[in-house]
Amino acid sequence: MSLYCFGIDVGGTSVKCGLFQTDGNLLEKWEIPTRTENSGENILPDVAATIENKIQERGIDKKDVAGVGIGIPGPINSKGEAACAVNLYWGFKPVAKELSDLTGLPAKAGNDANVAALGEAWKGAAAGAQNVILATLGTGVGGGIIVDGKIVAGYHGAGGEIGHANIDHSETEECNCGNRGCLEQFASATGIVRTAQKELSSCDESSSLRSLQTITAKDVLDAFKAGDAVAVRIMEKVGEHLGGALAIFAAVVDPEAIVIGGGVSKAGQPLIDCIQKYYRKYAFSLCKDTPMVIASLGNDAGIYGAAKLVL
Amino acid sequence: MSLYCFGIDVGGTSVKCGLFQTDGNLLEKWEIPTRTENSGENILPDVAATIENKIQERGIDKKDVAGVGIGIPGPINSKGEAACAVNLYWGFKPVAKELSDLTGLPAKAGNDANVAALGEAWKGAAAGAQNVILATLGTGVGGGIIVDGKIVAGYHGAGGEIGHANIDHSETEECNCGNRGCLEQFASATGIVRTAQKELSSCDESSSLRSLQTITAKDVLDAFKAGDAVAVRIMEKVGEHLGGALAIFAAVVDPEAIVIGGGVSKAGQPLIDCIQKYYRKYAFSLCKDTPMVIASLGNDAGIYGAAKLVL
Repeated sequence: MSLYCFGIDVGGTSVKCGLFQTDGNLLEKWEIPTRTENSGENILPDVAATIENKIQERGIDKKDVAGVGIGIPGPINSKGEAACAVNLYWGFKPVAKELSDLTGLPAKAGNDANVAALGEAWKGAAAGAQNVILATLGTGVGGGIIVDGKIVAGYHGAGGEIGHANIDHSETEECNCGNRGCLEQFASATGIVRTAQKELSSCDESSSLRSLQTITAKDVLDAFKAGDAVAVRIMEKVGEHLGGALAIFAAVVDPEAIVIGGGVSKAGQPLIDCIQKYYRKYAFSLCKDTPMVIASLGNDAGIYGAAKLVL
Repeated sequence: MSLYCFGIDVGGTSVKCGLFQTDGNLLEKWEIPTRTENSGENILPDVAATIENKIQERGIDKKDVAGVGIGIPGPINSKGEAACAVNLYWGFKPVAKELSDLTGLPAKAGNDANVAALGEAWKGAAAGAQNVILATLGTGVGGGIIVDGKIVAGYHGAGGEIGHANIDHSETEECNCGNRGCLEQFASATGIVRTAQKELSSCDESSSLRSLQTITAKDVLDAFKAGDAVAVRIMEKVGEHLGGALAIFAAVVDPEAIVIGGGVSKAGQPLIDCIQKYYRKYAFSLCKDTPMVIASLGNDAGIYGAAKLVL
């Protein structure tokens, strides 16, 4: 019986690390910088070194460590290989194999958003659910699909790439991915600001948003919660796009719970209400009552989910 | 080592039965009527009786039978329970448990469209693929999602209910499910006829379809293949709806292959070309080249997939 495992969440500027007991108890978390120079060649060796240090510092017997799970910002296939992780300046990299070779421990790798979904399904807002959709609303829209307690990584590592589900064929502006009409263009922080700017320029109605020099998603959400009529219309549009998209995803995998995470989710229940109104309108009858909840692990979702990968 | 298994596919009028070797070789197939009277109480006993007869007829030792898999027209959860199967006049029924009790064999149950997807992924058009989306275009649109070689049944048994993915919020006519804008309203045989009628009444352009008293989906597809300009426009609309929907589904589960089945799929490669054109337009970059193929097992997909359930 193993006693410990490590959960690692690699971001563009820092690597979050967690030492867990195998029952999911987080013993300690810490961060190291992400050294992206020289095509990010130091990143995995740095991770291996910090794990080795922690094992020695705590006097842990390596035989008692189940392994290391790691979340990476980029597509990871079910073998734990990265096709390319642009934020880490990586091309193809067999992440799980390299990390296992470096640490002498079993290692598994997943996409960071997928891994966060696994974390929320394990110890977060959907704790105990075997089938979960997570939508992470940040600068972009990420996602993770959990089926039977496992990440749906997808054949090319693009499982859960729900931000690039093309939901509005009439959109004329281009998404970062090159397509037009991706969910990310409407439901990310950037998408909310874009929708706000369109709405504000299409009418003369007074709004607290007009006094701001630059508008952030938080400004829109605050005005929405304060009942500003224009902000309410903006968020209704966001809710229709996101709720409608989640209803389609639910017709594919029929989850037990839908979790909304990322910076935008700090808006809390009013945001859920706004998404759920449209989700319920468009969802297949059997899925209409599927619970929709705010993510609860925050920035720790990644280390929890990464740890779960090896359990 | 078991040598045999049974695959059963229950339809509204007949039950298809298959005796398989466990390597997937179909030894024999036959049908029995579906007796739906008295709330369909005879259906599972009839299945058990025909299995028992076949075992005796062939002198098979029951210990050599791995089990019985069964596909049911209606939502089946991952425990093999039917919530309700309206075509069989069933309410809640623990199908797998009842069939196991009746036969004395291990039994598993799945939704018929999901089970057909498993069949195509095992021995059909996507043989060997672990991650598959099947879209069955018949009177309605059914579907099945295979992830890691297993059916995504969903929490309420609604996994793969892609016919009721709501993809057009501007639709005003009602789907059989009560919503407006479901994929089934555009991509089923019925949906193709509906789209044809709309297109024909919206223009005066000559078309071979105008000479027909009633139009079937086959008429539309034949005219499309013959290059009839109106039929081409109709099928472009169908292709845009279906290709666009499949692109969204691919952003969720990122399959290795997409299989198009059902009566409409008899139109063959020209249909694939028409769907794929829009699939590629809207799919996330990593998924654009995912192969799209016509189902190859026809009406036998259900018995193959049902057999695979117990292997």
